[in-house]
Amino acid sequence: MSLADRLPVAADFAAPPTMADRARWAAVDRAARPARLARLRARMAAAGVDAYLGVRPENGRYLTGLILGDGEEKVAGVSGWFVVSSDQVVVFADSRYTIQAMREAPDARIEPVYGDLRLRWPEIAAGLAARRVAVEAGFVSHATWTELVEAAPEVELVAAQDAAEPGTGWVEADRATKEPAELERVAAACAIADRALADLLPEIRPGVTEAHLAWQLEVLLRTGGADDLAFDVACLAGPEAALPHGSPGDRPVRTGAVLLFDFGAQVAGYRSDMTRTLFVGTPSTRDLAIHELVGRAQATAIGGLEAAVRGGGPLPTGPDVDALARDVIVAAGHGEHFGHGTGHGIGLATHELPSLGRRAARVALPSPTVFSVEPGVYLAGETGVRIEDLLSIDLAAGRVQTLTNFPRGIVIVGR
Amino acid sequence: MSLADRLPVAADFAAPPTMADRARWAAVDRAARPARLARLRARMAAAGVDAYLGVRPENGRYLTGLILGDGEEKVAGVSGWFVVSSDQVVVFADSRYTIQAMREAPDARIEPVYGDLRLRWPEIAAGLAARRVAVEAGFVSHATWTELVEAAPEVELVAAQDAAEPGTGWVEADRATKEPAELERVAAACAIADRALADLLPEIRPGVTEAHLAWQLEVLLRTGGADDLAFDVACLAGPEAALPHGSPGDRPVRTGAVLLFDFGAQVAGYRSDMTRTLFVGTPSTRDLAIHELVGRAQATAIGGLEAAVRGGGPLPTGPDVDALARDVIVAAGHGEHFGHGTGHGIGLATHELPSLGRRAARVALPSPTVFSVEPGVYLAGETGVRIEDLLSIDLAAGRVQTLTNFPRGIVIVGR
Repeated sequence: MSLADRLPVAADFAAPPTMADRARWAAVDRAARPARLARLRARMAAAGVDAYLGVRPENGRYLTGLILGDGEEKVAGVSGWFVVSSDQVVVFADSRYTIQAMREAPDARIEPVYGDLRLRWPEIAAGLAARRVAVEAGFVSHATWTELVEAAPEVELVAAQDAAEPGTGWVEADRATKEPAELERVAAACAIADRALADLLPEIRPGVTEAHLAWQLEVLLRTGGADDLAFDVACLAGPEAALPHGSPGDRPVRTGAVLLFDFGAQVAGYRSDMTRTLFVGTPSTRDLAIHELVGRAQATAIGGLEAAVRGGGPLPTGPDVDALARDVIVAAGHGEHFGHGTGHGIGLATHELPSLGRRAARVALPSPTVFSVEPGVYLAGETGVRIEDLLSIDLAAGRVQTLTNFPRGIVIVGR
Repeated sequence: MSLADRLPVAADFAAPPTMADRARWAAVDRAARPARLARLRARMAAAGVDAYLGVRPENGRYLTGLILGDGEEKVAGVSGWFVVSSDQVVVFADSRYTIQAMREAPDARIEPVYGDLRLRWPEIAAGLAARRVAVEAGFVSHATWTELVEAAPEVELVAAQDAAEPGTGWVEADRATKEPAELERVAAACAIADRALADLLPEIRPGVTEAHLAWQLEVLLRTGGADDLAFDVACLAGPEAALPHGSPGDRPVRTGAVLLFDFGAQVAGYRSDMTRTLFVGTPSTRDLAIHELVGRAQATAIGGLEAAVRGGGPLPTGPDVDALARDVIVAAGHGEHFGHGTGHGIGLATHELPSLGRRAARVALPSPTVFSVEPGVYLAGETGVRIEDLLSIDLAAGRVQTLTNFPRGIVIVGR
């Protein structure tokens, strides 16, 4: 039982998306691509480049429609890489990907490229009249960059990165601002995750292992509407919860200790990310106090964001939001036990812009956007608590919305 | 029923590894690391470099022991990156990874590095007396390479790649030769895959969807001893099998058509990869003929390898093996329908050296090693057949062993 009247159940949360939702999102994406390409072309014109060479699967999906599975880029070679010029979009595909590329990227020209990009690059660049090409320098390997320069010395390569914010890619910066249908999919992924955790609660009892619960939660996500996980499920019991990125093991759940779940779903490419730290049996005073502290830090950050948005702006910077949460934890003497940032943007990638960390860019958050708010306190060898929700904001609409709806207070299970 | 007396069942194949196997592999890995590092240090000395900067998770696991999950490198930042000098191994870890790194890489020094490698690099390099550093240029981004050069211009960076074979990384080349305990794990992953497909056969009947069967096969793998998938399960029915890397969809299995499964398991980091093209109901004459052709191409390549190994060498090159399979398919008039290479090495990565493609290095295969032999014929819009087995060879021992043991002949299901 929880401090609320009852434990949450799946029906408390939104139903999974339908086939009609998915068909609509596919159509909306295709219709949105010209505007996405226009934003990129405006950056290209401002930087004086004729073409953009992309290698990152998320950016390829955003701009061309071609979908690579998670990790598939490791075996795809250059298939899925793409070039945008002022009037063309070209997608590279070897024979394994030709039919798929024609199907998923119908507005692009499919260029057959095998392991021979080095040989083909001069001709491809010349065919696009590309003399100065912006490249996703944060994602293309140094070896490939060097090969392309050697293959076509007459084609100048420059990093496709924001001059004001080195390290920030152009398309990554554009992707931080979300379209309505992108936010819908993140929200749908959040609801699937909420439902899955609710369905898992009755399975949690002393003695079951972290690995078993992680697998059960994955099954609930994958059979509950998720196309895939956003990332491997973390399920960490007791002292293990002090490892913010630990992997579930054969350790059993113990009564009187915390149980931390960090997980997310994917829906039509868009991801969710949530963390709940549950209590198995009667909580210790120490764990309750830390949970209260982390919850207060999170509420403070969210409250600050709400005030900014409802006040009509300006929006805070990422470091501003981080400071809102961090100051609460520092004031309680736990500053050194909160080593990571307060949050990160999410969308086609689990971690994307904006960053809400101490070292993030000191620029106002974009809008509309969606990001996590996830402070934590970790006592090595003892316990750990993190609470993570996704927050969607829209300054123009005066809207702040928590997309994660699983209760964030004290939830007691396994007794 | 199959052309054999009966359909295969899980008990036909080796049992999954035990906890004792896993404990032994962990101990053997730790004991093997000094020799792995010695091979790398010999390359470093020959190339006149003081240190090696590694960023690829597979190489980090091989040399240091630190384990990142699939895709985790996308959110880990520089955590898991490592530096090998003549007398030290340093692993970078931010606060999320400190405890895990100490546990998994007990023979390394853990260096706390956050998003600030650019700031820390001059001091880290100086601390290791590193003036000339070999970097995994095929995996580090061009942007990071540029940042490191700007941060410490006095430290010369060079690509850690084979001078004779540009593009071939040093550790990747070393990893192509397998230790006995590495081959054991690949074999264990193969047996888990064989068992899972055998267990799936009764579920295959006209009307069930590709996506349902792919998920059922994943569940069988994950609950049958696999730590994870090697890659997303491909399950492609009828004409979809002509997409060598297609994704399973809501298309139903139809009687009289082929059903292609391409999938693999992971066991303690090592992977398997197999493809079977089954027949649902009575096969068409066309499909049977293509299956016979592909099987004959595969048998020809394997036969050539067996003859070379049992004759005491020399071993063929990757392109030689490719030609053995390809010539059979070309002679049958289907050369243009076999667009990919004949095989690839496998181990900590699903695709690694040696490559058995037309454009692969013209050097003798390493030994002992393990790779796939997977010819295919794809008729767009009609049908596709691929048969893929892992083959382990050891020239010194005169041993050729097929690690995939699921029958590779005609298997008829769903009737």
